[in-house]
Amino acid sequence: MTPLDRAERLFDELAQISADPPGVTRASFGPVENAAHGIIAREAGNIGLEARTDDIGNLYVTLPGRDRDAPVLMTGSHLDSVPHGGNYDGAAGVLAGLVLLERLSQGPQPPCDVTLMAIRAEEMIWFPEHYLGSRAAFGLLPKNAPDQLRRSDSGRTLADHLREAGFDPQPIRDGIAQLDKSRIAGFVEVHIEQGPVLVEADCPVGIVTGIRGNIRHRHCRIIGETTHAGGVPRRSRRDAVLAGVELASTLEALWLEAEKQGEDMVLTLGEFSTDPDQHGITKVPGALHFTIDVRSQDDAVLNRFEARLQALALEIADTRRVMIDLGRYTQAASAAMCVDMRNALASAARSRNVPHKELPSGGGHDCATFASLGIPSAMVFIRNRNGSHNPDEHMDFSDFAAACDVLTEWATTRMS
Amino acid sequence: MTPLDRAERLFDELAQISADPPGVTRASFGPVENAAHGIIAREAGNIGLEARTDDIGNLYVTLPGRDRDAPVLMTGSHLDSVPHGGNYDGAAGVLAGLVLLERLSQGPQPPCDVTLMAIRAEEMIWFPEHYLGSRAAFGLLPKNAPDQLRRSDSGRTLADHLREAGFDPQPIRDGIAQLDKSRIAGFVEVHIEQGPVLVEADCPVGIVTGIRGNIRHRHCRIIGETTHAGGVPRRSRRDAVLAGVELASTLEALWLEAEKQGEDMVLTLGEFSTDPDQHGITKVPGALHFTIDVRSQDDAVLNRFEARLQALALEIADTRRVMIDLGRYTQAASAAMCVDMRNALASAARSRNVPHKELPSGGGHDCATFASLGIPSAMVFIRNRNGSHNPDEHMDFSDFAAACDVLTEWATTRMS
Repeated sequence: MTPLDRAERLFDELAQISADPPGVTRASFGPVENAAHGIIAREAGNIGLEARTDDIGNLYVTLPGRDRDAPVLMTGSHLDSVPHGGNYDGAAGVLAGLVLLERLSQGPQPPCDVTLMAIRAEEMIWFPEHYLGSRAAFGLLPKNAPDQLRRSDSGRTLADHLREAGFDPQPIRDGIAQLDKSRIAGFVEVHIEQGPVLVEADCPVGIVTGIRGNIRHRHCRIIGETTHAGGVPRRSRRDAVLAGVELASTLEALWLEAEKQGEDMVLTLGEFSTDPDQHGITKVPGALHFTIDVRSQDDAVLNRFEARLQALALEIADTRRVMIDLGRYTQAASAAMCVDMRNALASAARSRNVPHKELPSGGGHDCATFASLGIPSAMVFIRNRNGSHNPDEHMDFSDFAAACDVLTEWATTRMS
Repeated sequence: MTPLDRAERLFDELAQISADPPGVTRASFGPVENAAHGIIAREAGNIGLEARTDDIGNLYVTLPGRDRDAPVLMTGSHLDSVPHGGNYDGAAGVLAGLVLLERLSQGPQPPCDVTLMAIRAEEMIWFPEHYLGSRAAFGLLPKNAPDQLRRSDSGRTLADHLREAGFDPQPIRDGIAQLDKSRIAGFVEVHIEQGPVLVEADCPVGIVTGIRGNIRHRHCRIIGETTHAGGVPRRSRRDAVLAGVELASTLEALWLEAEKQGEDMVLTLGEFSTDPDQHGITKVPGALHFTIDVRSQDDAVLNRFEARLQALALEIADTRRVMIDLGRYTQAASAAMCVDMRNALASAARSRNVPHKELPSGGGHDCATFASLGIPSAMVFIRNRNGSHNPDEHMDFSDFAAACDVLTEWATTRMS
């Protein structure tokens, strides 16, 4: 059985144990995520690799190098999924790492350890914290996280779920790291693309330029005045929808302007809604709720956008005599990928004749945790149809094989 | 007791019998509307006026003239209300008519009959048909109306409710009129203003220039594609909200343009909403629902707007690769008020030193039925705070008295 055959079989096994029609569900620290980690550990044993689990459930599969004290080359991704998601989001990167290690194990012993990390709890839908497993591994979670964070489905705390899965919340409370960043030579995460760029470019593989940061306003509202749609002249109205429309329209113009300047940015007003209990065709709308999600690889672009947004809200509130409340917002920093590693991965793709393309990552990934610590980090995207976080997510196995080839070529070249 | 004292007492009595906190409720053809008609008929008797009810429940209170065959001078309004509405919307016009008739009855006999019509079922919230009572009186309802129209609260047909209130659906089915338009010399409806124009202009009384017609799109939707807010570049998106924002923004620009040209128009997008079951801050919105209500005293303005709207929807659907479905729309024609009557009412106001102002009516009124038949028609608005169709509606009694003075002065002058 080749390493790719093994991976193909393991994709099937993962799909079987996590089937939850439509799609698959592997809740963070739930029995199915545990079972998925068990499958990877079992296969590591079958291949003859070392496997250990840290205090909080991350799994490390290692091919020992000649110098066990030398900084480690790492790869990996997560094994949890959103509810009724696809089988490949996260798991593809773990199995690509397994393919890499099995292939390397068949050659000369590498100069340093090569480690696959199967990460816990990446999907924010379960616990409201970015990159929970990888940040916990570096001691980066807030100390109250085990007792404050509650899983969205069960309502129980992270500490409860950790203990139930056989792990220990105490190191998180104490801020104790499971991993030493100075011991990591580099980290590569393979992941399916969550957008359509590779499909549209007809490329099986992407080399990620950076992971977009974001600013998110979850609770924007405009309060105007509900009045009679026929009898109130324009100048007497305080129309919440038309105020929101002016704001949205101007923000879209800022986006176009940023694109013209060659700046990286995407903007989404995912919720934009009058109140179904109050609105009506013959009422001037007195209230609007909306959300803003803006992302960029460049934090300066985000900060400039935010400043313009705040100024615009004041202007429009003033001219249209409405109250605009943008609410509290969260900001996640962008993470630049290591230029040397990007170039080396592109070289590897060229050596293997794998068509590839550079592109930003719109979604967040555990790789951002590594990059934020100054660890040289990179990502390889695999072409994927129909987006991710839904049961229609679709990766061709041949594209997975192409990404494995790029990863193997890169690691081999780097260690030779 | 003066006629105004009687009206003040009757406002209180109406409020008492229809109290339904907050506000009042007088459902079309319900027991409370029946009781309100009974109160007006009782007072007509007390004053010594004739009272009769037609087959479908409209009440006619008449002060007989010297020539009973001469065309009749009519006034009136409706007695039903929206649920939890105010006490004055409709009732003020009926009581103003009663004041007029009682005052005229104290002078020389008028040359022709003067008739107050207390109209049934004007509020469309009960039965989905414009001006139900007045159109039925002229035989203008669709013949299937009694058996097709169902009251929104009971789910029962108009025929059921007519019979229950002691009336007969058959004349509507047969298209038989209760009133002969050639026998009506003119019609004046007094009504509270539903907008803030008179409050802002500090005028107790308004002379209506015309009743705005409207075009209403109740079921507009934009279907794009729900995708990942981070990973999908702008050119690959089919964002329903930003398409709707462009449409709304351009429609507002058309409105501003129309105002610059001196055209009468108001535009309302009262519902504008992503789907609360589907939307989310990190999803490019794939669907938007909205409504459009545009009104003007000039049907040409409405028709031009509609043509621009349809063209715009096609353009935006094309450039943004979304489906825009404006759905079926309804159109209600505008009704111009009789210029001679407007001028005569303004003269009457000047004679009585009542500050007044010309303004359009944004809402529909029974007066539009009379105007549409070529009957010389006019409306007098009474200043009203806080809009109508809500419990906070507020008319000062002194403004009601001013409107009664204008109506009396006008009728007296006209018949002298």
